[in-house]
Amino acid sequence: MKTLNVDLNERSYPIYIGQNLLSRADLLTPHIASRQVMIVTNETVAPLYLEQVRQLLTPFEVHQVILPDGERYKNLDVLNRIFDALLQERCDRQCTLIALGGGVIGDTAGFAAACFQRGIPFIQIPTTLLSQVDSSVGGKTAVNHPHGKNMIGAFYQPRCVIADTNTLNTLDDRQLHSGLAEVIKYGLIIDGDFFAWLEDNMPAILARDPAALQTVITRSCQNKADVVAMDEYEGGVRALLNLGHTFGHAIETHTGYESWLHGEAVATGMLMAADLSARLGWIDDSAVQRTQRLLQQAKLPDSPPEDMTSADFLQHMAVDKKVQNNQIRLILLKAIGKSVVTADFDPNCFKDTLGAFTHQSD
Amino acid sequence: MKTLNVDLNERSYPIYIGQNLLSRADLLTPHIASRQVMIVTNETVAPLYLEQVRQLLTPFEVHQVILPDGERYKNLDVLNRIFDALLQERCDRQCTLIALGGGVIGDTAGFAAACFQRGIPFIQIPTTLLSQVDSSVGGKTAVNHPHGKNMIGAFYQPRCVIADTNTLNTLDDRQLHSGLAEVIKYGLIIDGDFFAWLEDNMPAILARDPAALQTVITRSCQNKADVVAMDEYEGGVRALLNLGHTFGHAIETHTGYESWLHGEAVATGMLMAADLSARLGWIDDSAVQRTQRLLQQAKLPDSPPEDMTSADFLQHMAVDKKVQNNQIRLILLKAIGKSVVTADFDPNCFKDTLGAFTHQSD
Repeated sequence: MKTLNVDLNERSYPIYIGQNLLSRADLLTPHIASRQVMIVTNETVAPLYLEQVRQLLTPFEVHQVILPDGERYKNLDVLNRIFDALLQERCDRQCTLIALGGGVIGDTAGFAAACFQRGIPFIQIPTTLLSQVDSSVGGKTAVNHPHGKNMIGAFYQPRCVIADTNTLNTLDDRQLHSGLAEVIKYGLIIDGDFFAWLEDNMPAILARDPAALQTVITRSCQNKADVVAMDEYEGGVRALLNLGHTFGHAIETHTGYESWLHGEAVATGMLMAADLSARLGWIDDSAVQRTQRLLQQAKLPDSPPEDMTSADFLQHMAVDKKVQNNQIRLILLKAIGKSVVTADFDPNCFKDTLGAFTHQSD
Repeated sequence: MKTLNVDLNERSYPIYIGQNLLSRADLLTPHIASRQVMIVTNETVAPLYLEQVRQLLTPFEVHQVILPDGERYKNLDVLNRIFDALLQERCDRQCTLIALGGGVIGDTAGFAAACFQRGIPFIQIPTTLLSQVDSSVGGKTAVNHPHGKNMIGAFYQPRCVIADTNTLNTLDDRQLHSGLAEVIKYGLIIDGDFFAWLEDNMPAILARDPAALQTVITRSCQNKADVVAMDEYEGGVRALLNLGHTFGHAIETHTGYESWLHGEAVATGMLMAADLSARLGWIDDSAVQRTQRLLQQAKLPDSPPEDMTSADFLQHMAVDKKVQNNQIRLILLKAIGKSVVTADFDPNCFKDTLGAFTHQSD
């Protein structure tokens, strides 16, 4: 097992990464604040792991709420079902909320923990690659609004994160691939050596080799923890973690958060960001090709939906959180392993990128 | 004009208190973060002050959302109307949200500012006595849930508070009296001299003498700011500000947040807390009588609704946020001007207080 520390002063917390961690009461129970525990999970994860987690908590008063599975349930109505459960069970301000599941569960349950009675203790047990390498680390919580993704949320740090790599054995291939998009992202934005390691080790990762997966998760979490420690509330450098996300959110909004997984949209978005960086002369074409090749190795899509136009992108990108004063700010590459946040780029190159990745005229 | 500072390190902010402040662009505009402004107000306040505030903001892109007036609209559905407006107007993360109105507007709009894109700049312009002396100071924001008051919220500090005493001239008498409950509270919990000053000056206050009102607001805000600076997230001493609120919330829940105003419920709750303190031998009967007399001078109720039983109190108090591990923690008095948070009191005295203030048996 590896233990990483996210360094945020009085909000610092450990991330435990390794095999068989869901049988380790000694990791979980020291972070429970009081007598009451509320586990939030979904219909897919509950049959697999809920009982195992409950076994660790026999000394406590344990309640549970099982939500439907899917990004389309990451909304205010489903959030309210968590509040209903907390109030029905008369949970107080010391009740510890545990998110057991993927990114949607972590984001929704984390926001519920942030808001309920203005904040109750919170623990993340991520069960997908995406949530283990990204959404469970750093304290961003949110739900979607019909007009935009993650529009309503809070910065709220967990007391600990327990990433059991065994849970990835029950993950379907497409979810695994989707999670690899965020992994590749760390290589692109700040860790060129990790990018090269991924190029060499993708076959072992796809075969779910435990040692390879532990390295993937540990290195990803370390990169993310470093960035978050520098900039908890995304005033500056933390925005680099959004590489590919502005393009990606446009794809997700266009497709109604349904047919495309988050990582798939981010993968295509990262390639679009790389393409734009090359058009600006900031990276050379070989860097774009390496990016495309690694995404393909990870079985991720490298072009937007067929029916999506440049106008669709422009419309959906304008309400993205990365927009300030109506200027589109993007994360772009200066090299593999080096990135910048900027609104200072030639808009014609931006249009050319949109044109190159879409079919229909606008 | 008086300026107080709420001392919360990087979240510190000024409170401006005085006459004619709604014509002072120089107070407001330095706290606007960017081009966009969203004013949140209600149907009662909008015809009185919205145009005046908009006049101060001519250089900005100003949007507005006008909500229905009343505590029953302090809920997730109405909160969502603020999000809808922000997204429809394509407001970004630098948009400044201004709450123009009483406590319900401040609490709801403040929570919207805390959540929208995980936090946007926020300014309070309170227009009622209650919001000027209490809810606009200290960063507590929230909406109600059908199962409990202020159950969903955040700690989120404004950039400034502008309390124009002129706005109290349009306040109806009952709202003025309701606000005085929180004023009297500061005297009871930490400021015995202020309590004595209120005993002497209540006629001038009820006559809305501007100098008396400015003293009332300044001294109340100073007391609150001192407590909040010691304990921003209510880990300890801040709970003293809840004197009377646990009893009071039970009354508000019982009456459906409709027929009783918040301050009226708190007033009765404070007298119940004083009564219990006397039964415990912590204060003498004359302190209870002074409390009751000052509440009566301020034209506030001193007994719960006729139909409310001890059992009603017990049921509603058990889901109050001041409950930890099923023990009821209350704010009780050690003197006029001195209070404690405690769960360590004789439950028989507690039952006797409930019995003395209710008519029906349980």
